[in-house]
Amino acid sequence: MMARLLVDGRAGETVSALDRGLGYGDGLFETIRFVGADAPLWPRHMQRLRAGCERLHLPPPDPALLLAEAREAASGLDQAVVRITWTRGVGARGYAPPAAVRPTRIVAAFEPPPADPAAQADGVRVRLCALRLAEQPRLAGLKHLNRLEQVLARAEWDDPAIGEGLLCDMADRAICATAANLFAVFDGVLATPALHRCGVAGVARAEILAARPATQVLDIPLAELAGADELFLSSSVRGILPVRELDGRRLAVGPVTRAMQAHWRALGF
Amino acid sequence: MMARLLVDGRAGETVSALDRGLGYGDGLFETIRFVGADAPLWPRHMQRLRAGCERLHLPPPDPALLLAEAREAASGLDQAVVRITWTRGVGARGYAPPAAVRPTRIVAAFEPPPADPAAQADGVRVRLCALRLAEQPRLAGLKHLNRLEQVLARAEWDDPAIGEGLLCDMADRAICATAANLFAVFDGVLATPALHRCGVAGVARAEILAARPATQVLDIPLAELAGADELFLSSSVRGILPVRELDGRRLAVGPVTRAMQAHWRALGF
Repeated sequence: MMARLLVDGRAGETVSALDRGLGYGDGLFETIRFVGADAPLWPRHMQRLRAGCERLHLPPPDPALLLAEAREAASGLDQAVVRITWTRGVGARGYAPPAAVRPTRIVAAFEPPPADPAAQADGVRVRLCALRLAEQPRLAGLKHLNRLEQVLARAEWDDPAIGEGLLCDMADRAICATAANLFAVFDGVLATPALHRCGVAGVARAEILAARPATQVLDIPLAELAGADELFLSSSVRGILPVRELDGRRLAVGPVTRAMQAHWRALGF
Repeated sequence: MMARLLVDGRAGETVSALDRGLGYGDGLFETIRFVGADAPLWPRHMQRLRAGCERLHLPPPDPALLLAEAREAASGLDQAVVRITWTRGVGARGYAPPAAVRPTRIVAAFEPPPADPAAQADGVRVRLCALRLAEQPRLAGLKHLNRLEQVLARAEWDDPAIGEGLLCDMADRAICATAANLFAVFDGVLATPALHRCGVAGVARAEILAARPATQVLDIPLAELAGADELFLSSSVRGILPVRELDGRRLAVGPVTRAMQAHWRALGF
C-alpha cells in the first residue's frame, strides 16, 4: 500500500466506522502532486477545496494545517501524491447533517505512479466509456466522495495499453476522462468541456485555463472531437498527456499540447 | 451515538482510512429494522444487497454470517435498526478496482427512532425539495454509498414539523422521499414511481409491491400528485407513513394507506 497516513493530525490507519464520509460519501478530496516539500498547485487545490466546502455546507479546513500535515506525510519521499480527504465527520444514523459538525481530515501520502516518458512523448490511447455521466448541477465540478460513476467507468477496461477512458454525458457531450480533464484544439484554438452539469473541474485544468485565458469553455459534442487537431488530458498527478488515439482514431501530438507540457514543467513538476 | 459495531466480524469502532467505501463511496448498505432477534424483511434486504453486488461487480456477502452478526450487534435491544455496510475494501489509490477484492463489512446496531403514533395515525407533512435527482440508470434503484444528493436534500429543512422531503428528477417526475419511497392512490389504484432512472428501490416498497401485485409502477409527474386520493411513504425503518400534507396541500388518510399499515403490522413490526 505504501501509504503514510495522518488522521486528524495523528499518525493512524483508521477512521470511525460511523464517519459520514464512509456512510454517505459526505465529503471532498484533493489529490496533490508533491515534489519534495513543494506542491506547485497547492493554492489551486485549497481554492477548490474551499469552494467545495461552501457548496456542500461543510466547515472549511485550515490550509496551513493541511500543508504542514501533507509535508509530514510526504517527508522522505522525493515525489509524492498526497490525498487529502475532508468529511462531515461522525454523525448519527440518517442523512440529516449533525447540528455541530466536526470534520474528519485524512492526509495520506503515496508513491507517485511510475514516470512514463513514452506517454509524455508519444501520448496515450483513450477509449470511449460506455457509462454516461449523470447531470447534477448541484455536484458538478466538485471533487466529492461520490465516485461510483468513475469506479464503474474505470472497471470497463483492464488493458494496460489503454491510458484513459473518455466520459460523455447522456446527451453525448464529451466531459472528461475517468481521472483527468480533456482539452481539444480546433483550428488552433484550445477548448475544454464546460462542467456545470457533471464532471470534475480539475486543478490542472484550472492551471491551463489561467495560463491560456483565451481557452474556450463550452459544450463539445463527442462527434466534434473527430475534427480536433490535437487532444490532450490534464491531471494533477500525471500532468499533460497527449492523446495519440481516441476510440481507434489516431491523432498527432501538436504544438499546443507541447506548449502546455512545457508550461507544466516550468511549474516545477 | 448508541451504536454497537462489528467490523469484519470483530467488535470495533474503526475501518481503514484507505477503504474504498470512504474513498469513493464504493459500496452498498442496508438499513434493517429488527424486532428482538427477528427482521421480518431480512430476505428482501439480502435480495437487494445481492442484486446491488451484481450491478457493482462486488463479491456478494454470506447472508447467514450477516444475520448472525446483525443479531449479535442488536442483542439486548428490544427494537433495533441495523445498518449493514458492504464495501469494496481497501485498495490502492485510484478508481481502478483492486484485482483481488476483499470486501469490508460493517454491522452497526442503533436504537430506533422514537415511536411516533401521531405520524402513524394522522400522517406527516412533506415538503418539496429544491434539489432534483440526477438520472443515472447504472446506479438507479441501488442503496449505494453515494448519497450526497440525499444529504443535500435533507439539509434543505430543519423544521421538525416536516416529516420528509419529496424528491423529483430533472423532468419534474416524482421519485421518492429523502429516506422513503412514495405511493399514491389514483381512483382507488395504487401506484409508485418507476425507479430505473434514479431513486432508491426500498425494501418496504418491494414488500408492498409483493402484497399488492396490481400496483402500477410508472412515471408520475409531480403535477399529477395533486390529483391523488391518498399518498403515503414506505420505509423499512419507519414503516408506512400517511402523508397529510404535500407542499402545503392537505390530504386525507385513506383506506389503501390503512390497509398497507395493517399489512405492515401483520409482518411483525
